[in-house]
Amino acid sequence: MSSPRRIGVAILGYAFMGKSHSHAFKSMPHFFYPPPAIPELVVIYGRTEEKVREAAENYGFKKHVTDWRKAVNDPEVEVVDNCLPNNMHMEPTLEAIEKGKNVLCEKPLARNSGEAKILRDAARKARVKTMVAFNYRFVPAVQLARNIVQSGMLGRIYHFRARYLQDWLVDPNAPLTWRLRKEDAGSGPLGDLGSHIIDLGRFIVGEFKSVMGVVKTFIGERPLPGNPAKKDRVTVDDAFEAVVELENGAIGTLEASRFATGRKNYNNFEVNGEKGSIEFNLERLNELRVYLKEWERGSIGGWNTVLVTEKTHPYIKAYWPPGHIIGWEHTFINEVYHFIKAVVQDEGIAPLGATFEDGYRNNVIMDAILKSAEDGKKVTIEF
Amino acid sequence: MSSPRRIGVAILGYAFMGKSHSHAFKSMPHFFYPPPAIPELVVIYGRTEEKVREAAENYGFKKHVTDWRKAVNDPEVEVVDNCLPNNMHMEPTLEAIEKGKNVLCEKPLARNSGEAKILRDAARKARVKTMVAFNYRFVPAVQLARNIVQSGMLGRIYHFRARYLQDWLVDPNAPLTWRLRKEDAGSGPLGDLGSHIIDLGRFIVGEFKSVMGVVKTFIGERPLPGNPAKKDRVTVDDAFEAVVELENGAIGTLEASRFATGRKNYNNFEVNGEKGSIEFNLERLNELRVYLKEWERGSIGGWNTVLVTEKTHPYIKAYWPPGHIIGWEHTFINEVYHFIKAVVQDEGIAPLGATFEDGYRNNVIMDAILKSAEDGKKVTIEF
Amino acid sequence: MSSPRRIGVAILGYAFMGKSHSHAFKSMPHFFYPPPAIPELVVIYGRTEEKVREAAENYGFKKHVTDWRKAVNDPEVEVVDNCLPNNMHMEPTLEAIEKGKNVLCEKPLARNSGEAKILRDAARKARVKTMVAFNYRFVPAVQLARNIVQSGMLGRIYHFRARYLQDWLVDPNAPLTWRLRKEDAGSGPLGDLGSHIIDLGRFIVGEFKSVMGVVKTFIGERPLPGNPAKKDRVTVDDAFEAVVELENGAIGTLEASRFATGRKNYNNFEVNGEKGSIEFNLERLNELRVYLKEWERGSIGGWNTVLVTEKTHPYIKAYWPPGHIIGWEHTFINEVYHFIKAVVQDEGIAPLGATFEDGYRNNVIMDAILKSAEDGKKVTIEF
Amino acid sequence: MSSPRRIGVAILGYAFMGKSHSHAFKSMPHFFYPPPAIPELVVIYGRTEEKVREAAENYGFKKHVTDWRKAVNDPEVEVVDNCLPNNMHMEPTLEAIEKGKNVLCEKPLARNSGEAKILRDAARKARVKTMVAFNYRFVPAVQLARNIVQSGMLGRIYHFRARYLQDWLVDPNAPLTWRLRKEDAGSGPLGDLGSHIIDLGRFIVGEFKSVMGVVKTFIGERPLPGNPAKKDRVTVDDAFEAVVELENGAIGTLEASRFATGRKNYNNFEVNGEKGSIEFNLERLNELRVYLKEWERGSIGGWNTVLVTEKTHPYIKAYWPPGHIIGWEHTFINEVYHFIKAVVQDEGIAPLGATFEDGYRNNVIMDAILKSAEDGKKVTIEF
Repeated sequence: MSSPRRIGVAILGYAFMGKSHSHAFKSMPHFFYPPPAIPELVVIYGRTEEKVREAAENYGFKKHVTDWRKAVNDPEVEVVDNCLPNNMHMEPTLEAIEKGKNVLCEKPLARNSGEAKILRDAARKARVKTMVAFNYRFVPAVQLARNIVQSGMLGRIYHFRARYLQDWLVDPNAPLTWRLRKEDAGSGPLGDLGSHIIDLGRFIVGEFKSVMGVVKTFIGERPLPGNPAKKDRVTVDDAFEAVVELENGAIGTLEASRFATGRKNYNNFEVNGEKGSIEFNLERLNELRVYLKEWERGSIGGWNTVLVTEKTHPYIKAYWPPGHIIGWEHTFINEVYHFIKAVVQDEGIAPLGATFEDGYRNNVIMDAILKSAEDGKKVTIEF
Repeated sequence: MSSPRRIGVAILGYAFMGKSHSHAFKSMPHFFYPPPAIPELVVIYGRTEEKVREAAENYGFKKHVTDWRKAVNDPEVEVVDNCLPNNMHMEPTLEAIEKGKNVLCEKPLARNSGEAKILRDAARKARVKTMVAFNYRFVPAVQLARNIVQSGMLGRIYHFRARYLQDWLVDPNAPLTWRLRKEDAGSGPLGDLGSHIIDLGRFIVGEFKSVMGVVKTFIGERPLPGNPAKKDRVTVDDAFEAVVELENGAIGTLEASRFATGRKNYNNFEVNGEKGSIEFNLERLNELRVYLKEWERGSIGGWNTVLVTEKTHPYIKAYWPPGHIIGWEHTFINEVYHFIKAVVQDEGIAPLGATFEDGYRNNVIMDAILKSAEDGKKVTIEF
Repeated sequence: MSSPRRIGVAILGYAFMGKSHSHAFKSMPHFFYPPPAIPELVVIYGRTEEKVREAAENYGFKKHVTDWRKAVNDPEVEVVDNCLPNNMHMEPTLEAIEKGKNVLCEKPLARNSGEAKILRDAARKARVKTMVAFNYRFVPAVQLARNIVQSGMLGRIYHFRARYLQDWLVDPNAPLTWRLRKEDAGSGPLGDLGSHIIDLGRFIVGEFKSVMGVVKTFIGERPLPGNPAKKDRVTVDDAFEAVVELENGAIGTLEASRFATGRKNYNNFEVNGEKGSIEFNLERLNELRVYLKEWERGSIGGWNTVLVTEKTHPYIKAYWPPGHIIGWEHTFINEVYHFIKAVVQDEGIAPLGATFEDGYRNNVIMDAILKSAEDGKKVTIEF
Repeated sequence: MSSPRRIGVAILGYAFMGKSHSHAFKSMPHFFYPPPAIPELVVIYGRTEEKVREAAENYGFKKHVTDWRKAVNDPEVEVVDNCLPNNMHMEPTLEAIEKGKNVLCEKPLARNSGEAKILRDAARKARVKTMVAFNYRFVPAVQLARNIVQSGMLGRIYHFRARYLQDWLVDPNAPLTWRLRKEDAGSGPLGDLGSHIIDLGRFIVGEFKSVMGVVKTFIGERPLPGNPAKKDRVTVDDAFEAVVELENGAIGTLEASRFATGRKNYNNFEVNGEKGSIEFNLERLNELRVYLKEWERGSIGGWNTVLVTEKTHPYIKAYWPPGHIIGWEHTFINEVYHFIKAVVQDEGIAPLGATFEDGYRNNVIMDAILKSAEDGKKVTIEF
C-alpha cells in the first residue's frame, strides 16, 4: 500500500472555530479510512503572538504567524480555512483564491450580500475548491432529513419552521464583543444563527421566495470587553423574527435570538409535508423525529425518535456502534472529510457542501429580512 | 345545610362543543364541592329534530328545540351557552343578552371585528355576565404559566412564540364543511386555532402591538359534504404565519395550520424572559416546562417538566391525587365552574375568564393579520 | 326508540375510589351511545353519617347508609361496586354474590390468596357477573399494547419489566393510615401498586412462573392519623423489588415503591420482543411508545410515540377528536361500560376485564413475592 | 514555557476499544491545556499482521507488533492500555505491572473474581498506577450525578435501579463471536454491560450487600463467525435480572440484555432519595434528569433535564460552549486525562477512577449474581 497523500492546511483564527476546525483536520483520518488525504497542520494565524503560539503548540501546528498573508501565501499550504470574524472573511479569502489555494470559509460568507457577491464571483472564476462552512449540513440527522424530503417521502411540503435560540446575552453585563458590532459582524443572531437555519431550509426544502420580518435590540448598551466601566452601543440585532414563503409554495417562520433563556444551542426545525413530517433539535443532534402518515393505518402513527447512529446513516460507519452517540465537533470532522475529498479527488462541493453561491444567496436572504424590518413590508427575494 | 341553588342552562348546538359543554355542566358539581350552583340542563337547540332529540336524551336535557329563539327565551333558562358555528354567534347572543340571560359564547367571538364590536358593546351595557369560551385559559398548566409570568418570576419578557397545528385537512378529499367557508366561519385556522393562541398571548404575556403575516390556502377545492362527487371552493385560509410585536417590547411568532402532518392538537407556546422561560403543549396538557436561570447556579439548570397535578396547582384540588392526570374535557369543567360562580356570586369574569372585550380584541388582531397578508405590510393594532 | 334500560348501583365507600367510580357511572352514558344501560346511583355506603350524606349529595345518590348490608340488600340495586379497604373486600362481596348482585370489586381482590380463593370459588358458582376493578386494563394505550403483543407483532417476547413508583411516603411524618397496616391492607405498595403491574403483565404478556424478591420498610413508625403526637408501627412494606420468570420464557423485573421521590404515579412498563418493543407510562397515559424492528430497514427505526387518541384506538370513538387527550378518570368510564355491558348483555368479563380468577392469581403471585422475600429463595408460582 | 513531558503508550488490541482509546490519547492534549503530558502512540499489538499494520497507520502508531510481550516490554512505553478480550486481561496486565508499566485495563477486570483477585493483589504491591477502564465514570453527567448524591443533596437513598439494554443479538443468525463464549468472555451481558451498571452503582451510591438473580440464554446455538453453515453452543447468558440490597439500606434492580429490541445503548439508571432523585440515559449522555423535592414548594416541582454542557460541569471547560454536545468517545478523552495526570503527577486513581480493587469487587458481585441464579437463593456479598 502506498503512503497516503498529505495536504497542507492553514487556519486563520485560533479561537472557538480554530479549535474545532483544527481538531477536525487531525481526527478525520482516524475515522475515515482510507482518508482521501492526511491533513498537515502547517500554519495558524492570529493577531496576538502569545496566544497564537500557545494555540499552535496545543493544536499541533508547525508554525504560527501574526500576519495572515504569510499563512495564505505559505507554499506548503493547499487549503486555507478562514475562521476569522465576519469582517475578515473577504480579503484573506480573495487573496487565497487568487494564490490558488482551496478555501473553506466560515459562515456567514460575508457581512452583506454586496461583499458576498464579490466572493461568489471570485469563486466562480477560480480553479480551486471553495466552500462555506455551514457545518450543520454535516450532522448525520440533517442529511437523513434532507434525504427524506428530497426522496419525496413526505410528498408536497407545506411548512418549514426553524428557530435557532441561545441565551448568552440575557445578562445585560455581558461584554460588547465583535459579534455585537455591525462593522465587524454585519448583523447579530441573524448572521450568526439565522444564516444556519436559512441554509438548512435551502438545503433540505428549497429556495426562499419572500420574507417579512422584524429585528430587535433589547439591550442598547453594553460594557466594553477590556474596560467594563465603560459602555458602548450595541449596533446589531439581539433577535429577529420572520415569516417566509418558499418557491415550492410552503410557508413558515424563521427566528433567532440570544435572549431565549434556557435555550443553549437550540437549532430546531420542522418540515410538514402531505405524507409526513420531520423535526430536529441540535441539542439532541443524534436524533431525528420522523412522522409518516402511513403508520396511522396500523393504529401506530406517531413521531418516531430515530437515533441516527446506525451503520446505514450518513457518516456513521466512520464512528461507533449503534447508540454510541457523536458530538457537535463531529460535524466538522465530516465537513473536513467532504472538503478534502472534493479537493483531492476533484469532486463537486455541491450538493452536500455549501458553495459560495449558497453563501451569497444566504446573505441576500438576510439582507432582505433586514430590509423588510426597516420598511415594514414584504420583500421578494432576488438573487 | 340548605339545598344548593339550581341554575337553568340552554345549550345551542349539540355537536363537538355541545357534547363537551353539556358534560362539563353535569360534572362540575361532582368535583367542585360545594358547587356555586347546580346546573340544570333545561334545553338544547339544534337544526335537525332527530339529532337534537337524540342529543337531549344522551346528554340528559329536559327539552330540545329546533328554533334557537325558544331556547333563548325559555323562562327556566338563566344561562345560554352558544356553541353554534361562528356565523351564528351574533344574533342568538344579542337576543340572549337582551332577554337578561347570562351568555357563554364559543370562540372566536365573531367572524370579524365589526361583528365582535357590536357584541362587545352590547355586553358593556348589559347587566348579565358574558364570557367567551376560550377554554385553554382553564388548563391548570396555563394558569400556572400565567401566574409565573405575571408574578415577575421570569422578569422582562423578550419572546412569545406560539403555534397551533393540526393535520386533519392534509387529505385533499376531506369534505368542505362550514369551517372551510368564509361566510360561515369567517376564517380558517386563523379563527379556529389562531384565536386561541392570540388569546393565550394576551392572557399570559400582554397586549399585541403590531403584526405582519401571510395566509395560504393549499387545496383550493374540496368535495361537498353531502355530495362528494361535486367540489366547491375553499374560501378560508389553510394556514397562517405571523410575526408579532407586543406592547411590552417582546417579539415573536404566531402560526396555525391544518396541514401539519402528525400534529394532532399541537397548541404549543413558549415565553422567554430575562430570568426564565416556560413552554406548553396541549397534547401533554398536564405538563408545563419551566426554566429558571437561578437554577444554573447550582449546576442543575434545566427545563423542568412540571406535572401540574398537585393540590397546590389551579383547580387540581377538585380532582385526583398527584400524577393522576386530567383530560382535555376538564378545561370545560373548570370554565363552567368559573362562569357559574361569576353568575351566582356576581363576581368578575376577568381576569381569568375572557370577556367580550377580550373577544373583540382577539377579532381585531385576526383582522390585522388578514389585512397584513393582503397588503404585504406591517399593521399596527388599534382597538 | 324505546327508553334505555336502567340499572341500580350501590357503591361501598365514598373516598378516592367512591368519587371516581360514581363519576364513571354517571358519565358513561354521555359518551357511549347508545349505552348498554343507564346506571342509577341508588345508594352509597360509608361509616360516617355526615360524610356519606355529603358524598351522596355531591355525587347524586338517592340514598346513603352507614350499614353496608343495607346497601348490598337494597332491592333497587343490581350492581354492587365495592370500593372499601382491602379488609372489607371479602364479606360484603360474598354477601352481594349470595344475594344475586353483580359485583365490581376494587383491587387487590383480597389481602392474601387464602381470602382470594374463597372469593374466586364463590364467583365460580355464582350466576352473577363479578369483576376485579383493575382499571388500567381500560387505558386505551394499554389495550393497544395488548393488541400489539397478542397479535404477534413483536414476535417472541424476551422481557417484561414494570415499575409502579410513587413518593407520598417520603415524608416521615405522613400519617399511619389503613394502607400502612397489614390487618387492613394486607400489604403496602405490593398490594396497592404491585397488584396493578402484575395484572398488566398477565394481561399483556402472559402468566408468571417464578419470582424472587425483597420487600423493605424504610420508616418503621409513623404518627397516628388522629393523634400526631403518638406513633405506631408500620406493618406493611414501603417498597418491593422482584425478579420474575414468565411461562413463555421471558424474564424481567417488578418494582413498586412509595419512596421514589418525584415519581407521582409512575406506572411504567416495557415489553421487548424479537420484532419490536413497547413502553408505557401512566403519567402520560394517552401515549404508547412502540418500536418495530422492520422500520430499521428504511433507516428510520426508532421509538414511535403513538398519541392514542385516534378513532381507531380502543374506546376513543366515545370521546374527542385526535389530540384531545383523556384523563385518568376515563379508565373508570371505560371499565364501567365494559362491566355494565357484560351484565346487561350477558357477555364475558374476560378477556378484557379481570375476573375473580385473575384476582386470585394476582394474590397468589403477591404471596409468592412475600414468601421469597422471607426465605431468600426463588418461589415457583402454583395456582 | 518548557516543552511538555511526553509519555509513551502501548495499546493492546486494535478493534472497537483500540480505536476509541487511541483517539482519546491523541485528542486529550488538544482539549486539556496544558496537558499533564503528551501521549505518544508508540506501539499497538494485534494478532493479525495485516490488520494491526493498517490500524497502526490509521491511528498513527510508530510500531505494530503481533506479540503482546514486545509491546509490554518496549522501553519507550510507560503506559500499557489493555483493550484485549477478557481472557487476555490477566497475563499481559500482570506482566506489564511486573515490568513497571502503568496499566489501564478494559473492563471487566477479569473473567471471574478468582482472576480479578490475582490482579488486585498484584496492583496492591505495585509501584505503578493501575486503573480499570470503566469509562462511564467519566461522562460529565455521571460525575454530576455522583456529586449530587455524595453531597447529600438527595438525603438518604432509598432506591438504585439500573438497566443496560442493547439489541444486537435479537437476530438468531448473529455470529458466535468471542463475546458469546464463556472461556473468552467469562459471561455475556452480565460482564459486558452489567459490570458497567454495577460500577456506576458503587461509584454513585455505595457498596452492594446482597443479590438475587436469574440469567438466561434465549438462543442456544449460533453460526460460527468464519463458517456460518456450522453452529456451535452459546455458553454465556443473553440477559440477566437481579434484585439488590445496598449497604446503606437502599434496594433496587439491575438488568442487562442484548435482546431488548430498540434499545441500542440504553444504560439507564435512577437513584431515589428522600430529598430528590436523578436519572440518566447513555443514549442522551449530555443530559441528567434531576428532581429536587424543595422545588415542589414553589409549585414548580418537576424533573429537570439538565443539559450538562456548562463550564461549571465536570470536564466541560475543555470542550465547547453551552449546548454544543459531546459524544460517547469523550468519555475516553476524560478517562485518559485522568489516568495520565495520575501517572505523571503521582495522584490517586480513586475516587474518580476505578482501581483494581473496584474491578475485583465488581467481579465478586457478578459471581454472586451467577451463583444466585444457579441456586435460586439470595447471596450475600463478601469481598
